[in-house]
Amino acid sequence: MICMTSSSQIRQPTRRPRVGRSAFLTCTPLYWGLARSTALLDIDLVQDTPDRLTGRLLSGDLDVSSISLVEYLRHSDDLVMLPDIAVGSDGPIQSCAIVTKVPLSALDCRTVALATTSPTSAQMSRLLLEQHYGVTPRYVTRPPDLEVMLDSADAAVVTGDAALAATMNRPVSPGVRAYDLGELWRRWSGLPFVLAVWAVRKETAARQPDIVGMVHRSLLAARGLARSESRELADRVAFWEPFTAPMLQDFFTRALAFSLGKRERLGLSEFARRSGYVTAALPS
Amino acid sequence: MICMTSSSQIRQPTRRPRVGRSAFLTCTPLYWGLARSTALLDIDLVQDTPDRLTGRLLSGDLDVSSISLVEYLRHSDDLVMLPDIAVGSDGPIQSCAIVTKVPLSALDCRTVALATTSPTSAQMSRLLLEQHYGVTPRYVTRPPDLEVMLDSADAAVVTGDAALAATMNRPVSPGVRAYDLGELWRRWSGLPFVLAVWAVRKETAARQPDIVGMVHRSLLAARGLARSESRELADRVAFWEPFTAPMLQDFFTRALAFSLGKRERLGLSEFARRSGYVTAALPS
Repeated sequence: MICMTSSSQIRQPTRRPRVGRSAFLTCTPLYWGLARSTALLDIDLVQDTPDRLTGRLLSGDLDVSSISLVEYLRHSDDLVMLPDIAVGSDGPIQSCAIVTKVPLSALDCRTVALATTSPTSAQMSRLLLEQHYGVTPRYVTRPPDLEVMLDSADAAVVTGDAALAATMNRPVSPGVRAYDLGELWRRWSGLPFVLAVWAVRKETAARQPDIVGMVHRSLLAARGLARSESRELADRVAFWEPFTAPMLQDFFTRALAFSLGKRERLGLSEFARRSGYVTAALPS
Repeated sequence: MICMTSSSQIRQPTRRPRVGRSAFLTCTPLYWGLARSTALLDIDLVQDTPDRLTGRLLSGDLDVSSISLVEYLRHSDDLVMLPDIAVGSDGPIQSCAIVTKVPLSALDCRTVALATTSPTSAQMSRLLLEQHYGVTPRYVTRPPDLEVMLDSADAAVVTGDAALAATMNRPVSPGVRAYDLGELWRRWSGLPFVLAVWAVRKETAARQPDIVGMVHRSLLAARGLARSESRELADRVAFWEPFTAPMLQDFFTRALAFSLGKRERLGLSEFARRSGYVTAALPS
């Protein structure tokens, strides 16, 4: 028979925080770090598409999640962003691109297909085309399949793995060029491109600051581990993806930035201002 | 503009193997090891209840999965088990128990509630009661809630976290005793209790031996890491579960065995034989 232990050994269990992560390669370094540090034992990591992560965060199904910057700006009344961490670039980002059959300045009244999966890249493209290149295209929304998008449009905005594949690997048809959104934005504004932030409902941040702090510390530690082990990370990911290890290491360490420092916050605010978002919740 | 790289850099991506894991604490050491070794970058780990993992494995939704031993025996025509790894115990297992209001030998014609979540513990209980204690109870199947089960039955077979909670923490009502299935089986047969094995469809094993071998090596390495880091593992899990770190370390390292050596294979075969399973697929 099993000996009954005394009830003094009973501890009330705490629910692990549910944390959303995008299935895209942009999130892979943090996933690597969370695994290596075994922070995965302390969080319930949920993988989903970027657009669905926002809905699950707002509904309370997730406690913390990476979400597209535009989604954050749309819901900034209810959300607060974690400090010091984001996904973006200070220059070329490689994973967000306008792929076009004509020069960007010739897209006036032409059709631009926007992928459904990244509202921030879509909004960044609209800003660039309308305010920087002075053109007003007709926008259509399409699933993120570059070939299909270009069949019925003069240009296509693609992100994530689809954009990486389009820009890194495939010589798109003759005359078709890919423009890096991070590079175009930096040339125009002089500032970094913030693609996604880690957000939490204000109500959760107020009610469970210790849990939110734990997730935040885990993410920062994961970022550090991924940086110091970027070569091994790239080697391992290259086995499964259509990119070489050097391409991936370059993407993870030189293109992508996971910081949210003073320059990134300026870039974020400038993007929000030019987009017309009125928000008091921006970090300064 | 992003430079187009040559098509010689294109590598055909391989799909990561989909591997099932039970959400129960019995699987936590291997999860720890898979995270620590970053094998999680190479597999698509899917968490589900034990009964659903079997269906997903058989349907091809999973490539490899831990499944209940009885489920393996039922489907041994289509499945093969990975060598050298299993979940079980050579003596008390702590997480599989008969909780009873009367002595086991007094359960003839009484009602025994079987939890829906572990067919192996249910079958082991039937073997013990009918062949060892010589009683023939009336069996009913119930969701794994011990209190509800005992409301309408004289005894209840519970497994997993529910059994651990019942046997380790809570002094069940006066006169109610918990019997450890691993301990009863060892006393009766002299052999280890195998609760779950890691299985793969024969067709997958034949078609993708390299992938299956990679998952197998990852599991063996994960087991080794969990063993050498059992104290840290127990400390971390104790924060979230209603058990103390010493109780968890004892459970992970002394009660549970993750081996499938000669003695475990004998225990498995003896269980299958006494249960009336005719199978040519048993390891010897």
